[in-house]
Amino acid sequence: MPITPDQLAEIDALRATPRPTLRATSEGMEAHLYRAHPVLDHGFIRVIDYMGDDAAIVQAARVSYGAGTKHVQNDEGLIRYLMRHWHSTPFEMCEIKLHVKLPIFVARQWIRHRTANVNEYSARYSIMDREFYIPAPEQLAAQSTTNNQGRGETLSGPEAARVLDILKSDAARSYDHYEQMLSQDGQQGLARELARMNLPANIYTQWYWKVDLHNLFHFLRLRADPHAQYEIRVYAEAIAACVRDWLPIAYAAFEDYRMGGATLSAKAIDCVRRMLKGEQVTQETSGMSKGEWREFMGVLD
Amino acid sequence: MPITPDQLAEIDALRATPRPTLRATSEGMEAHLYRAHPVLDHGFIRVIDYMGDDAAIVQAARVSYGAGTKHVQNDEGLIRYLMRHWHSTPFEMCEIKLHVKLPIFVARQWIRHRTANVNEYSARYSIMDREFYIPAPEQLAAQSTTNNQGRGETLSGPEAARVLDILKSDAARSYDHYEQMLSQDGQQGLARELARMNLPANIYTQWYWKVDLHNLFHFLRLRADPHAQYEIRVYAEAIAACVRDWLPIAYAAFEDYRMGGATLSAKAIDCVRRMLKGEQVTQETSGMSKGEWREFMGVLD
Amino acid sequence: MPITPDQLAEIDALRATPRPTLRATSEGMEAHLYRAHPVLDHGFIRVIDYMGDDAAIVQAARVSYGAGTKHVQNDEGLIRYLMRHWHSTPFEMCEIKLHVKLPIFVARQWIRHRTANVNEYSARYSIMDREFYIPAPEQLAAQSTTNNQGRGETLSGPEAARVLDILKSDAARSYDHYEQMLSQDGQQGLARELARMNLPANIYTQWYWKVDLHNLFHFLRLRADPHAQYEIRVYAEAIAACVRDWLPIAYAAFEDYRMGGATLSAKAIDCVRRMLKGEQVTQETSGMSKGEWREFMGVLD
Amino acid sequence: MPITPDQLAEIDALRATPRPTLRATSEGMEAHLYRAHPVLDHGFIRVIDYMGDDAAIVQAARVSYGAGTKHVQNDEGLIRYLMRHWHSTPFEMCEIKLHVKLPIFVARQWIRHRTANVNEYSARYSIMDREFYIPAPEQLAAQSTTNNQGRGETLSGPEAARVLDILKSDAARSYDHYEQMLSQDGQQGLARELARMNLPANIYTQWYWKVDLHNLFHFLRLRADPHAQYEIRVYAEAIAACVRDWLPIAYAAFEDYRMGGATLSAKAIDCVRRMLKGEQVTQETSGMSKGEWREFMGVLD
Repeated sequence: MPITPDQLAEIDALRATPRPTLRATSEGMEAHLYRAHPVLDHGFIRVIDYMGDDAAIVQAARVSYGAGTKHVQNDEGLIRYLMRHWHSTPFEMCEIKLHVKLPIFVARQWIRHRTANVNEYSARYSIMDREFYIPAPEQLAAQSTTNNQGRGETLSGPEAARVLDILKSDAARSYDHYEQMLSQDGQQGLARELARMNLPANIYTQWYWKVDLHNLFHFLRLRADPHAQYEIRVYAEAIAACVRDWLPIAYAAFEDYRMGGATLSAKAIDCVRRMLKGEQVTQETSGMSKGEWREFMGVLD
Repeated sequence: MPITPDQLAEIDALRATPRPTLRATSEGMEAHLYRAHPVLDHGFIRVIDYMGDDAAIVQAARVSYGAGTKHVQNDEGLIRYLMRHWHSTPFEMCEIKLHVKLPIFVARQWIRHRTANVNEYSARYSIMDREFYIPAPEQLAAQSTTNNQGRGETLSGPEAARVLDILKSDAARSYDHYEQMLSQDGQQGLARELARMNLPANIYTQWYWKVDLHNLFHFLRLRADPHAQYEIRVYAEAIAACVRDWLPIAYAAFEDYRMGGATLSAKAIDCVRRMLKGEQVTQETSGMSKGEWREFMGVLD
Repeated sequence: MPITPDQLAEIDALRATPRPTLRATSEGMEAHLYRAHPVLDHGFIRVIDYMGDDAAIVQAARVSYGAGTKHVQNDEGLIRYLMRHWHSTPFEMCEIKLHVKLPIFVARQWIRHRTANVNEYSARYSIMDREFYIPAPEQLAAQSTTNNQGRGETLSGPEAARVLDILKSDAARSYDHYEQMLSQDGQQGLARELARMNLPANIYTQWYWKVDLHNLFHFLRLRADPHAQYEIRVYAEAIAACVRDWLPIAYAAFEDYRMGGATLSAKAIDCVRRMLKGEQVTQETSGMSKGEWREFMGVLD
Repeated sequence: MPITPDQLAEIDALRATPRPTLRATSEGMEAHLYRAHPVLDHGFIRVIDYMGDDAAIVQAARVSYGAGTKHVQNDEGLIRYLMRHWHSTPFEMCEIKLHVKLPIFVARQWIRHRTANVNEYSARYSIMDREFYIPAPEQLAAQSTTNNQGRGETLSGPEAARVLDILKSDAARSYDHYEQMLSQDGQQGLARELARMNLPANIYTQWYWKVDLHNLFHFLRLRADPHAQYEIRVYAEAIAACVRDWLPIAYAAFEDYRMGGATLSAKAIDCVRRMLKGEQVTQETSGMSKGEWREFMGVLD
């Protein structure tokens, strides 16, 4: 259970008293504020704060144009233009702050996105909670035979059961030993910063993560992608659902140009042109490697 | 006059309709929102948006400590501790967005602070306004004779008058020629992106600038410093006045530890220790160069 | 003349004495080191230092794969794979340091690329040289009638002559006045940090600019693009020519996937699929705006 | 044993063939290139590449001053001046690339320094090695009773033995189970990206880490500090020893101003002034909290 009754009460209290502000507000995002969206078995994402709305993106873009020009374009057209032409700075004018609870191996992928602000729960200072990610049986997949960093078929029942048994018992034993090493009952008690090294990568940690919209979109494009590991993808999807309510126009442009779009190489564009003229192009005549061709076919199908 | 009646009316309209929000709000900052604080002869800074308050800094810091620990410290003590020990990430959890109107030579210094988001008025797209920074006579200073990048005494009246005359007439002529080159009256009209190259560095530009509090403090420490050029220092001071109202506790800690503090080298600390034991330390016996010693004496006096 | 005889002699001296190193070296880049590649009328780019070669990109990528895996792929295939899949971190393992002399209005565009290290000539500390960018007549273009931030046709001879006359005489006068204000002959002399404000945006400045290859490619993609302003594009092209000699494999991948590639939106991919099935798709049936459709047609033609 | 005979042979081969370069070289650093400096029980740091030397810092700083000024200052004086006045950009002109083998809990601290380039060994793609950090008995310390994130006294012999036994047996068991889950012998075999979650935080990983000197100094100041956790401090110290040989002047300035220096608050400076005038200042009359006063006394003693 990711959220305790105490935490729910605290969230209710935070949501009970709206205050007046002169800042840009997003009704869609206000509905999400503080609420925990469950992810995996014990994790969540919560929006703690946000800055800006769709209009703030437009406002920053229009500072470039000044009052004198007669560039009549609606907000949606302008936002789509900015996204299409990789004008990233107006999107940087929106900011979001999230509270995330996530397994450590997910946190280690996540933190590679460096242009963000992070405050993480400290296992030097505090004692970690006894909470571990144990995958649902349908998420226990075999190593992919074609992709060195992907998953293949779901494990059979007995093998899945063996795996789950290992994960659960190792987590429990590691945590028992963590507590035994820390204990000051009849002994000195090992320093927290040392005892934590016994804990496995599926233990949960927490952090505050603050990022601008441009960098968030970059994160979502890579981590909400079907090739991303399932355990981080579900976090990306939960965040994406909040962004859609926060900035409906910008999010729609992001979906069309980034999530649903594709980048074609010069060779691939040449192939498309030849195909449209009726030529039968094959991998051999394309100039592409087999891998590139397979991906190119994936775009066209 | 930095603000036109139309702009004032627009600001009044923006300030007329508060909306409810569940986010952290700062009453001190709400009072500043959208309002233009005049800087130099035609410039201003305006707060367009903000995220967080003093409590948000504490909240991010406390995520490190968890619920189990009994670390009872009030918010002010914690914020001072964070500042003293260079724990910068909790300060990154606050963000501010400013609209700034400033001369180009000031903008060129400002932009060296790279960890920020910027959208600037585009002279490729739009026509620049006829507004130039002309210093007040008391700001017309001679080159410093001791500091290669500083100012010395104020220019005498006749010399100041000559300088002002040059600055005004060159600005006017450059702008007249800018307009003549752009004009499509009886000619093709030079492209804006080319015509702008004739404009001097004291013409005003505008931008939106968004930055987190940690990086803003770094900016303020360097640019509100007495060694900074006057023309950027007045911007830093205007921003600092808003930050003080926004985050009174964090700003007080910043003033004590950064603006009013000093970093002593190992050699300087050694000298202080020897002095406190009664030794008469001189530059010769200090191990410091003349420049270092002079700066050290400046700290102690 | 961008390079003085003294500077040429200094470059020859720097190139005279190779030293042994155990680091990765690039013969193609060694040939460029220190040499000035002229750009515009007085500018240049010079490679001052570099780190890494094509093999360094591969080396960093292979750290992910370890010794145990039997992933047999040649370096070119791997680099192309990394580029195609936006795996940017291996490209960050190469670094370049450039010395650039450029007009201030170009420097102002350039500096928007924030993830880089910069040391610029200081007009607070030093006196600027009397060197201004004066466009060649064939570069004097009218404002584009279709693109608010572009150029149209070349100016007619008489109009070009008028423009050149303005640019030259205003530059000369501004600089004369700059010197007069600075002069300490019979007067105090205005501080350099103030006098500079009279100088127009086509005066030349200089800086050292250091950047990793990933961010350099991003810069080149935007600034070597036909839509970039000519005066920055020629710098990007001069740098690109050095990068090609430095990292032939990575540069070829960059050309294929980035410079020559195109990003299609979900709508555009859908149109391509329908076209390949024989459907006559028009702007009206495409779901795209007129602008998007025009750009899409530009990719297919 | 951190380095295998095969790896030693590879390092010897890399060091066998110097090549000529026209770049700045550092003899002190050439002696370190590729060689593994052991850290902890199985870790190491190796310098893979570097850019610049002490002269490169000076060169970048002098670009600000131009040829015309008669600022005669030797390199050491200039570098010390830059360090003293927080002029960070010239230090950014040097760059270093390291290969590091380190426990995951150390990597998690390290990665908080975001302004760097990283390529880490991928446990999605590859199988982790059976290597775990097991502290030496003298490093097994009790939780500090005064500092929530520090270590106290060394554990007694029997308690240390119990802890070591736990750490070793849990590591061995976790790794055995990791292999059993991965095994495709008679079963499908769990995906690597999932199996890794069972591995504890003391398992070793590897990465390439590239950073500029300014940010490296910041890292060293925080991580070579006595308050840093021992297990990251030994890495910082090993790197610092290489930097000292690479850039002797810059490193000496760093030691004097940063590692050995201290920042005093406005209150603390006021106290020093009063003390030097003979006043007996106490915590009560200092205006400082008890914690601040204790730290202040630590500087003066």
